[in-house]
Amino acid sequence: MNVTRTSTDVAIVGGGPAGLMLAHLLHRAGIGSVVIDIRTRREIETTHRAGILEQDSVRLLTESGVGDRVLRDGRRHAGIDLAFGGAGHRIDFPSLVGASVQLYPQTDVFTDLADARARDGGDVRFGVGDVSVADIVTDRPLMRFTDADGRPHEVGARVLVGCDGSRGICRSAVPEAERRQYFRAYPYAWFGILCQAPPSSEELIYNHSDRGFALISRRTESVQRMYFQCDPAENVTDWSDARIWEELQQRVRANGYTLKEGPIMSKTVLPFRSFVQETMRHGALVLAGDAAHTVPPTGAKGLNLALADVRVLAEQLELHLRHGDADALERYVERALQRVWKAQHFSYWMTTMLHRLPDASGFDVRRQVGELTSVATSRAASTYLAEGYTGWPS
Amino acid sequence: MNVTRTSTDVAIVGGGPAGLMLAHLLHRAGIGSVVIDIRTRREIETTHRAGILEQDSVRLLTESGVGDRVLRDGRRHAGIDLAFGGAGHRIDFPSLVGASVQLYPQTDVFTDLADARARDGGDVRFGVGDVSVADIVTDRPLMRFTDADGRPHEVGARVLVGCDGSRGICRSAVPEAERRQYFRAYPYAWFGILCQAPPSSEELIYNHSDRGFALISRRTESVQRMYFQCDPAENVTDWSDARIWEELQQRVRANGYTLKEGPIMSKTVLPFRSFVQETMRHGALVLAGDAAHTVPPTGAKGLNLALADVRVLAEQLELHLRHGDADALERYVERALQRVWKAQHFSYWMTTMLHRLPDASGFDVRRQVGELTSVATSRAASTYLAEGYTGWPS
Repeated sequence: MNVTRTSTDVAIVGGGPAGLMLAHLLHRAGIGSVVIDIRTRREIETTHRAGILEQDSVRLLTESGVGDRVLRDGRRHAGIDLAFGGAGHRIDFPSLVGASVQLYPQTDVFTDLADARARDGGDVRFGVGDVSVADIVTDRPLMRFTDADGRPHEVGARVLVGCDGSRGICRSAVPEAERRQYFRAYPYAWFGILCQAPPSSEELIYNHSDRGFALISRRTESVQRMYFQCDPAENVTDWSDARIWEELQQRVRANGYTLKEGPIMSKTVLPFRSFVQETMRHGALVLAGDAAHTVPPTGAKGLNLALADVRVLAEQLELHLRHGDADALERYVERALQRVWKAQHFSYWMTTMLHRLPDASGFDVRRQVGELTSVATSRAASTYLAEGYTGWPS
Repeated sequence: MNVTRTSTDVAIVGGGPAGLMLAHLLHRAGIGSVVIDIRTRREIETTHRAGILEQDSVRLLTESGVGDRVLRDGRRHAGIDLAFGGAGHRIDFPSLVGASVQLYPQTDVFTDLADARARDGGDVRFGVGDVSVADIVTDRPLMRFTDADGRPHEVGARVLVGCDGSRGICRSAVPEAERRQYFRAYPYAWFGILCQAPPSSEELIYNHSDRGFALISRRTESVQRMYFQCDPAENVTDWSDARIWEELQQRVRANGYTLKEGPIMSKTVLPFRSFVQETMRHGALVLAGDAAHTVPPTGAKGLNLALADVRVLAEQLELHLRHGDADALERYVERALQRVWKAQHFSYWMTTMLHRLPDASGFDVRRQVGELTSVATSRAASTYLAEGYTGWPS
């Protein structure tokens, strides 16, 4: 079958929020792109993911003209509750760092960006197959795929960007000798549910307990998102609604909370891992978002880190493509990695401060409460947490 | 042999800084005490220990009239250097928290207190043997010992205080059913040296490196104290002076420092552990300092925590003995434990942030650098560290 050959400035593998935001920002700078994704638009839109946007993520959406819905439907969260030792302790973001976060699901960010790309005539192909990249150390790298009808395509570009997440092909397109992979597994996972019930709390509750961590989050007035720490091998079919509610209630009751219950619509076990691939560039292939790094979900950093990556990358790509700045892509990598390792630490810190290790001793649990007490009672420590949660300036 | 029976208000087992400071404070409140220690005064004076006094520890010495020497010979440290990722990063205490610390060896604190007790006619017996306590759940508990000549003594008191450290008898005089012991071991130790050399740095250097932690401290203009992380099973005889200097220089060189070398006068492997016994009181027996808790040395909290304990304990003993306040000793325990667990966390935090785990992955080491970067570049995080290092207000 004949290969359809096209040509663009930037070929982007992966049409999640990172890939689409990059294409959107490049378009605003007059730079062309083609975006592909192996998933259909519907698959992406129905996969529940993160829901907390840092202040700068919201700013990126609004300043680039895709912020109408987040401003209308997003819910401002001015703090979180750290629950431990029998009570809740509020961390108030505005008074500590003059910032807040926005509750707005990642699937909605995706929809806003996909709509904007469609409106602006962007070239985005969902549901493609056989994706590969080639000639990445030349100045004319290629992105190959087959479309929904099985027809082969080849896109020539000046730069390839891998936004294809942790299971994508771009990460491993960098030869082994040229990459270092930093990895950490955790001996726990999150059991996540979506339920039909009114909100149990105005803001998120990060709940430490002897039985393990629980996170009480929300989606809408009638649908809520909650999580509890579980064994990574946990089987969702072993958990009836009644058993899930009993476990969640026990954990939050220790700190004086009661949850509003309702039918559970979805049950998932979410794995925990930390990952960074360095460096984030090889020849004309650049990585961004989950393709380069994964964080455990406790600090709500994953989506924000991806958006921070492509915000910087769009600037540097413009310098590289428009002004021939030879160091521009390396500066992207440098700036991105600085933030990545701070975010890796923040995510690790929130995780280890709040979760119970399977073999935790009494000392470990008491020390955690000592840490949480320090964090909640020291304005400096609360500020440090709030800085990380609302996001560092770029 | 006839038992010599005496009677006092407070019988104190342990004549280190905690026991002597308690006796000294009680004396100033008109409350009598007898202090015993199995070590001779000379043994205590020649065992090198910690050297950093928090602001409130210095205040306790000066306000209770034993601060002449610390004010004259102590050396004010207005900060520390966090060394990592190729450079040093100063944490400036006065600008962050309006406080500083004092370099003044624990042995000198001991000497000042022992001299004050002698001057004030205090009853302090060093070099005793066969120490035991009895009748601790009565209102007339007993402390028994034999003096240097083998003669048996029995001191009746209203309260017994165990200041006899982590290897003393008081901790285990609390029946097993009445105590909980919280414990954590660490897979590393400190190799500590004293050397004859000029100071390598004005202030302490907390040095992170791929080879493990090193701490560059000082004693005088001609004698310095340094430590490097080692295996707990390390044998000092395997370490020539040349090998020690090579190891220390390699670790600090990574961050741009060079040490001034000289003959090594002492080599010791210092174990690392965290320990808390709860509660800190049983009947008429109260624990203070290392008898109740041990911290790893990284945060320089051990001596300061002991002094903070006895400062509160002296107040509460006065309320108990003089005013018959039945809850006074429980309030001591409550206030002490609050600080103990914060200090346990601070010591654990400084330790795990700076030491290399034997099985550390690349991720772990990079994440540590991410954390150290966050701490050094965030004013809030630097303040949080400075608060812990200079000591929380009581």
